[in-house]
Amino acid sequence: MENKTQLSVMGGGLVGCLLSLYLAKQGYPVAVYERRPDLRRADLAGGRSINLALSDRGWRALETIGISEDIKKVAIPMYRRVMHDTQGHLSFQPYGQEGQAIYSVSRGGLNRALLDLAEAEPSISLNFEQQLLEVEVSSNKVSMLDVAANKEYQVQPDVIFAADGAYSMVRLSLQKTDRFNYEQSYLDYGYKELTIPPNADGSWQLEKNALHIWPRGQYMMIALPNIDGSFTCTLFFPFEGDLSFASLKAPEQLREFFQEVFPDAVPLMPDLEQEFFENPTGSLVTVKCLPWRHKGKILLVGDAAHAIVPFYGQGMNAGFEDCTVLRGLLQEHEHDWDTIFKTFQDLRKPNTDAIADLAVYNFIEMRDKVADPRFLLQKKIEAQITAQFPDAWLPLYSMVTFSPDLPYAQALANGKRQEEMMNELMQYIQSEADYHKPEVQEYLQRHLGKGSI
Amino acid sequence: MENKTQLSVMGGGLVGCLLSLYLAKQGYPVAVYERRPDLRRADLAGGRSINLALSDRGWRALETIGISEDIKKVAIPMYRRVMHDTQGHLSFQPYGQEGQAIYSVSRGGLNRALLDLAEAEPSISLNFEQQLLEVEVSSNKVSMLDVAANKEYQVQPDVIFAADGAYSMVRLSLQKTDRFNYEQSYLDYGYKELTIPPNADGSWQLEKNALHIWPRGQYMMIALPNIDGSFTCTLFFPFEGDLSFASLKAPEQLREFFQEVFPDAVPLMPDLEQEFFENPTGSLVTVKCLPWRHKGKILLVGDAAHAIVPFYGQGMNAGFEDCTVLRGLLQEHEHDWDTIFKTFQDLRKPNTDAIADLAVYNFIEMRDKVADPRFLLQKKIEAQITAQFPDAWLPLYSMVTFSPDLPYAQALANGKRQEEMMNELMQYIQSEADYHKPEVQEYLQRHLGKGSI
Repeated sequence: MENKTQLSVMGGGLVGCLLSLYLAKQGYPVAVYERRPDLRRADLAGGRSINLALSDRGWRALETIGISEDIKKVAIPMYRRVMHDTQGHLSFQPYGQEGQAIYSVSRGGLNRALLDLAEAEPSISLNFEQQLLEVEVSSNKVSMLDVAANKEYQVQPDVIFAADGAYSMVRLSLQKTDRFNYEQSYLDYGYKELTIPPNADGSWQLEKNALHIWPRGQYMMIALPNIDGSFTCTLFFPFEGDLSFASLKAPEQLREFFQEVFPDAVPLMPDLEQEFFENPTGSLVTVKCLPWRHKGKILLVGDAAHAIVPFYGQGMNAGFEDCTVLRGLLQEHEHDWDTIFKTFQDLRKPNTDAIADLAVYNFIEMRDKVADPRFLLQKKIEAQITAQFPDAWLPLYSMVTFSPDLPYAQALANGKRQEEMMNELMQYIQSEADYHKPEVQEYLQRHLGKGSI
Repeated sequence: MENKTQLSVMGGGLVGCLLSLYLAKQGYPVAVYERRPDLRRADLAGGRSINLALSDRGWRALETIGISEDIKKVAIPMYRRVMHDTQGHLSFQPYGQEGQAIYSVSRGGLNRALLDLAEAEPSISLNFEQQLLEVEVSSNKVSMLDVAANKEYQVQPDVIFAADGAYSMVRLSLQKTDRFNYEQSYLDYGYKELTIPPNADGSWQLEKNALHIWPRGQYMMIALPNIDGSFTCTLFFPFEGDLSFASLKAPEQLREFFQEVFPDAVPLMPDLEQEFFENPTGSLVTVKCLPWRHKGKILLVGDAAHAIVPFYGQGMNAGFEDCTVLRGLLQEHEHDWDTIFKTFQDLRKPNTDAIADLAVYNFIEMRDKVADPRFLLQKKIEAQITAQFPDAWLPLYSMVTFSPDLPYAQALANGKRQEEMMNELMQYIQSEADYHKPEVQEYLQRHLGKGSI
């Protein structure tokens, strides 16, 4: 199929690359513009491993372009949460059924693989160090800056896909048009990336196939494994207050604090002070907006349309699912961009709103509840329910993470109903054995015996 | 008192002018920059009268600069709502106690009076047709455009007050900084201004001292009197749908629709078709953001900080109240801008959030409920409660409108408690006479007999 419609994809990140591949396969010439240099030629992250959690929605997308097997080779399955308490004692919570896992993958590595595929596609042109300054929405004229030459120029694609991230400049141009609903809201928490390096023999200093959590009520640290034997730790911590980024000023004070609250992690972090005070403090934003489109001319996708906080590990997965849905609509409606964009927005908006809310909620759960005995008991009871009624009760986490396509909004609605049931049920339950009490079993048979909720 | 701190006020509208006067009285030199031409020299509104509802918070501010008496001479008190039904029958609802009124004033006239005062102040410089392009937040460098000369230049004031309205460019610069929470949300309704001209003798074609409403469930029209004998009507109407701005396309169709739903208004509107199709369709936005300040260097005020929909008639009043609060803080904390701005934000944010929500709620009430017999009965019962317990029960509308300083958030909280009480009480009430039923009186004595809520 040949096509003369000029498409531009703004942003050469994960979503921009994947979308470009889908558009090219549909027969369109695609120009990709990326503000940063080609990360395959530049060592941008300064050697640090930044990893992401890839789950079934993401894998589904990678399968369509034939790289899931290659990526799986360098991805680390994490089968369970490992909770570290203040004495260094561990407890465990599987993410799903036997064999189910979320995968720690390198953001840079995945992006490089996608760029290689895009570059191999003759109808895709990759343009690096090209910064989008503004879009004149009425005409689709885009003002660009060639960063190296420091020269401004204009392009005027027929259709613009904005995959330019949480701080999208395309969205900023849309925001100035009439009746554009927009919200950016920040948590009062920031994050700091720290490192647990490998052992001298290259092995991992903590259990490799797990996501580690140090939940501490008002803050928490997590660690995800990298293939080089290291872990990337992320401390989620208040910006202000008695214990906060603002209050931790001196190296001795920092070490003392870490010794007290993360005693088993400190010996594994030789560069703690240096990293803490030199690495930037990131902020955590949720972005919601509507419309995502301007006629059949401009479409926001991925973080540009719906940036979420990272606590469900679904940011990239949701962006890839955008591409999956668009791919289907491209095939169904061919060149009818107006219909494609309208349908895409109608289909996706309720679901990305749902995952945005779930991500904020999961922060509370990870930070706070996974150290609560009642919560852990409830999770064990829920596991028993799942075992007894596998067709009627799938845990919320599994619906989000291990389904390739259950709509997020449906998962959220199911999860709310389950939570209401558990609130009733847990009144009868003080231990795991109470699961077998007649009133508990009666309740479950009444609600779950005849079919799925 | 002399002061060398250079202050700039961005925006020469109502709030910008009033704030400049307060700053000048405090001894500061003030440069005011306004994007539009001097409206005292230009006929900007094309002869149309655009009016605003001024109430006690606004009057309180005007008194401090000695122009309330002058403005009162050209303001029209509106003592009650006059509801027009589809047969042209009228019903009435007083706004407050005997003698209490909201005032219809000309936005242009009020702005001109404030500009005259500002111009007479030696330490204020007024700069028209100067457009703010961007603020470099880290340095307070402001890029300006001299519109007439089409020339860019920079200024670098010590402190910037952003009174540049709902589409504030200062706020847009702040929005790009880290951790700026921002929301702009639009109603699905637009508005269109129409005119009921005066009688040949210059008198008013409808009752002069009232705000007229044609409530129609899913839409409504209102009319406010002007001193030239005309009324400015505003039709609030869905953008899309069966009956909407999008669906009313032809002059005959428009007239037929108006004949059917506003039969008593149509004969008074000779230019209906022309105005409807030539006047712009306005949109209705609520803006919320936080922080309102950057250190002690930049402060958002008025619509730039908290644009609201017009349905409580409090937009200007809330902006003027900002100035009142700032005036007190300027006197209390003198040059400590950091403290002034922080305190201002802490004091005002909960209140402007409250009036924003009240304004949206009042749209529903005006559009929908004022034609509902149960709602009108409830209002009559509430009037009886106010008469019997004047210290314990002030209607929400009065708390917002006829108090010079009750915090909006307090009014909203009181109003919610009253609504809960009325929900209980109205179960016993089918007519005005039921107010005297023993169970009603007992309930009221129990809840209101001993003090105010």
